[in-house]
Amino acid sequence: MPTSDIDRLIQCLAKLPGLGPRSARRATLELLKRREALLDPLVAALAQAAEHVRACAACGNLDADDPCGICRDARRDASVICVVEGVADLWALERAGAYRGRYHVLGGVLSALDGVGPGDLNLSALVARARDAQVREVILATSATVDGQTTAHYITDRLADCDVAVSRLAQGVPVGGELEYLDDGTLAAALKARRPF
Amino acid sequence: MPTSDIDRLIQCLAKLPGLGPRSARRATLELLKRREALLDPLVAALAQAAEHVRACAACGNLDADDPCGICRDARRDASVICVVEGVADLWALERAGAYRGRYHVLGGVLSALDGVGPGDLNLSALVARARDAQVREVILATSATVDGQTTAHYITDRLADCDVAVSRLAQGVPVGGELEYLDDGTLAAALKARRPF
Repeated sequence: MPTSDIDRLIQCLAKLPGLGPRSARRATLELLKRREALLDPLVAALAQAAEHVRACAACGNLDADDPCGICRDARRDASVICVVEGVADLWALERAGAYRGRYHVLGGVLSALDGVGPGDLNLSALVARARDAQVREVILATSATVDGQTTAHYITDRLADCDVAVSRLAQGVPVGGELEYLDDGTLAAALKARRPF
Repeated sequence: MPTSDIDRLIQCLAKLPGLGPRSARRATLELLKRREALLDPLVAALAQAAEHVRACAACGNLDADDPCGICRDARRDASVICVVEGVADLWALERAGAYRGRYHVLGGVLSALDGVGPGDLNLSALVARARDAQVREVILATSATVDGQTTAHYITDRLADCDVAVSRLAQGVPVGGELEYLDDGTLAAALKARRPF
């Protein structure tokens, strides 16, 4: 019979993605058991993040600075913009370490089902950035889902009168992927996009 | 490339049981995206819990009050004490709603492997409570693991000269359990403890 204070904490934690009521209870007990090691640092980190982290006005990335570290980094290629759905995708690309240009975070994808239209996404800012003379290429890195590809097509249309090359991520066999277990769509895409060896 | 503020929050969340680095990243983004709905209430709940929740001096339960709500509840049977390993077990028994006595939280089990001896558990307080004239029964609800059962045997010895009946939870087929999928130990225990129908 957790008291209201404990109950409130469990409910707050249970709302986080990846945590249900059961794991929220475990996490709550662990937090209360190890206050100095877990609870106090978490409170401090949450307060810090809440106070300092803002969306970058230029690209939509989350950062303690505005413009964000990537937009301010002079060593990064300002002529390429990689369009991603969310900050999680930006982080994934940064972890891969293969991209040295800038980003543009849409904040979602077009979705008729969820009622997300062009006005709900960070799109006008992208078109404005694409008109900048130094930008030569826009890479569309939206998901390979129906909504992600619809959004990519829509953006391509919107960028038609900007003087930029528009590209998208290659589709094909994932590195380490075994053909036997790949879905038909991926196999068909990989076959269609085959390249000379 | 999360900044240090974001990184610190991810690291704090990743230390919680049930959350790894990947789900901590997701949770962090969700917290930063929905500040009013998630982040602010979580900070408030954590601060509240850190300030108010204490271990009950009598039974070891976590509560905003000391003695805890269960120890102070006059409608609960003060003649029975149910001994549990941790507060999570106490909560589980309370959710089952089948017990109306009081509790005693050990704070762990005896474990030679982890170096947990009798002095590390909330045991002397239990013996003191068992000597109270109004206490008639001590129910051992430690886990059905080797360490849990060792602890139960040890407690039984320690309570030998107290004037209390010592019992333990029944072992057998779980409600809804299919015999086909039960382990040999449980089946043997259920057979041995069979009761007239």
